[in-house]
Amino acid sequence: MIVVLRLGHRPDRDKRVTTHVALTARALGADEVWVSTQDAELERTVKGVVDRFGGKFRIKTGLDWRKAIRGWKGEVVHLTMYGERLSKAIPEIRSKNIMVVVGAEKVPREVYDLSDWNVSVGNQPHSEVAALAIFLDRYTGGKALEKNFRGRLRIVPNPRGKTVIDRGKGKGGDAA
Amino acid sequence: MIVVLRLGHRPDRDKRVTTHVALTARALGADEVWVSTQDAELERTVKGVVDRFGGKFRIKTGLDWRKAIRGWKGEVVHLTMYGERLSKAIPEIRSKNIMVVVGAEKVPREVYDLSDWNVSVGNQPHSEVAALAIFLDRYTGGKALEKNFRGRLRIVPNPRGKTVIDRGKGKGGDAA
Repeated sequence: MIVVLRLGHRPDRDKRVTTHVALTARALGADEVWVSTQDAELERTVKGVVDRFGGKFRIKTGLDWRKAIRGWKGEVVHLTMYGERLSKAIPEIRSKNIMVVVGAEKVPREVYDLSDWNVSVGNQPHSEVAALAIFLDRYTGGKALEKNFRGRLRIVPNPRGKTVIDRGKGKGGDAA
Repeated sequence: MIVVLRLGHRPDRDKRVTTHVALTARALGADEVWVSTQDAELERTVKGVVDRFGGKFRIKTGLDWRKAIRGWKGEVVHLTMYGERLSKAIPEIRSKNIMVVVGAEKVPREVYDLSDWNVSVGNQPHSEVAALAIFLDRYTGGKALEKNFRGRLRIVPNPRGKTVIDRGKGKGGDAA
């Protein structure tokens, strides 16, 4: 079980980046994303992708992040540019149940203390979306990207165009 | 030489996501980011990070993307959820000079034809930031994240807090 906890989401300002966080979590093998701020529109967007592209990914918004972290049965991995090296931390994570915490702007000091691991995906400023993607890709040994979601829409790898199979319509086709 | 070309940037709407694209490019080993739309504020933000954290990363905004792709001396890799599998494509990329193309919303058909490679980082909808991060991490064999940028500010990996060394002030310290 992998849950991604997104802190500090401001619906007006962070709408697009938090959507990227949620869809990256889903595509890279997480089971759920929890967003501390309530955001019905974000929930609709993510559920729409799940409806079309498949899988059992779930989103919850509007929750107490302290309780969520404290109540987690497993290990809590906070991604931060200040943390210890990814390559050092990953082999030490033992639990099958991990909560991956990613913040927006400044993350409260408390998160560093409550987490089992503070892990940096490089010690340079970049992006929580990038950090989450690389963490999950490496943590799953590259396997998450190969997952078959068995959705209504399926994209078939194509070096020169777009091949989308729509099982709802019972036919495939070249969309581009 | 690795250049990231960002297409379809709308300064009001995509400000934050394009900033994430640019900083991810820098942190994961690219030399430059080129953004097709002019955006002085974005340039200032990225140059500010380079000034503080080091390296020779450059940003250019406001350029003709067709000319940029056509004029590229090397291979052009377009990241798209429709493309061929990452694990299949990466070993086939031969040039040391690659241009990595990432779009915002819908990318013109022409980009698929002008590119040497259309590569998918998973065939699920997620994020161009995530796709770029995983592509560069894998393309550089994980080495980009280990790069030393020799900047004024240097972050020392710390499992429990923040250690920032400011060479401009000639002293280090625990910032958290």
